[in-house]
Amino acid sequence: MKVAVVLSGCGVFDGAEIHESVLTTLALVRAGAEVEFLAPDIPQARVVNHLTGEVAVGETRNVMVEAARIARGKVKNIATANSQDYAAVFFPGGFGAAWNLSDFASKGADCTVQADVLAFAQAMADAGKPACYICIAPAIIPKVYGAGASLTIGNDTDTAAAIQSMGGQHISCPVREFVVDKQRKIVSTPAYMLAQNIAEAATGIDAAVTATLALVE
Amino acid sequence: MKVAVVLSGCGVFDGAEIHESVLTTLALVRAGAEVEFLAPDIPQARVVNHLTGEVAVGETRNVMVEAARIARGKVKNIATANSQDYAAVFFPGGFGAAWNLSDFASKGADCTVQADVLAFAQAMADAGKPACYICIAPAIIPKVYGAGASLTIGNDTDTAAAIQSMGGQHISCPVREFVVDKQRKIVSTPAYMLAQNIAEAATGIDAAVTATLALVE
Repeated sequence: MKVAVVLSGCGVFDGAEIHESVLTTLALVRAGAEVEFLAPDIPQARVVNHLTGEVAVGETRNVMVEAARIARGKVKNIATANSQDYAAVFFPGGFGAAWNLSDFASKGADCTVQADVLAFAQAMADAGKPACYICIAPAIIPKVYGAGASLTIGNDTDTAAAIQSMGGQHISCPVREFVVDKQRKIVSTPAYMLAQNIAEAATGIDAAVTATLALVE
Repeated sequence: MKVAVVLSGCGVFDGAEIHESVLTTLALVRAGAEVEFLAPDIPQARVVNHLTGEVAVGETRNVMVEAARIARGKVKNIATANSQDYAAVFFPGGFGAAWNLSDFASKGADCTVQADVLAFAQAMADAGKPACYICIAPAIIPKVYGAGASLTIGNDTDTAAAIQSMGGQHISCPVREFVVDKQRKIVSTPAYMLAQNIAEAATGIDAAVTATLALVE
């Protein structure tokens, strides 16, 4: 069974959250899935010095090129990916989901999803393939599925309010658990929106990955 | 129990191998250890575009700044780290161990270890604290401990020969296992020197971390 993991760069503050991406991959490979990494071939919205937390003014990096660090080299341009090739899709979190896969970080409820990412995510949804959104990535679910989808980003009230105003049904959820929208086959889990350490994130991600794979027909 | 994880950047081809770094951290936190990330505050020897595998000519990145991506922000300059603060030290692999922590990648048996890294590693060794070297990182063991230390980098004959010529005692080892030098309290495991996937790397790293923590007095 081949599955897609969509990366948004490499690093929690401007790309894909590294622990979540690796833990998702580990859970998938342990479950016997073949993982293919996808990313949009676009410049990062920003580059952040992860030691200082400050934006590295003037520095530019490409989302797909940086994602290849997590992928150990092999990343496919999501614009060329065919939903028929994958049994399910997984979106780790990190600010890259809110800066690169979408502009949720700057626009909130008025956000749009990057065109190639949106096309692939909607093609998977239209095909009835399950999807797993982790950490802040569930913020884009209302833009992919339209109003009514149930999801969680943990319990952050501002983020939950923005999701509600986009038409999402936010459900508060502890870090070790997950939320399932059975009708739409969407699983979401808070991970580092709530995790105090990597072991907590791993427990929630392991459970969410198992639940997602169980939805594969 | 506080332990040190020494990172050499962020990305298998020019820094710390990301999966190995995350898997080591996961195993340590699950074992109840408090992890502190250390790195040298030096420019990377090179920057590699991980999508093409080619050197990004003219691009520069700092080892400690990039390591902060794996660490989610908090990395201590290894030059200021005190061996008395840590019960054990862990060195994930990746080419950063052979390009940044040392120059083994270019000099082979004639390599030297970066001064701050060498000072910390030797202080830990002198204090009888256990150390765990993963993937290609064990190549620096002979420079830290002198001749006679037993170690593994898997079964690569050229790398093993270079290690032997530095005075190391190389022992071939499968990916799911590890080698222990009981006298010197050194554990090593091949990880991605041999791993065909992340689950294989995780099995060896989990075992090596457990063995290392068992050596803590």
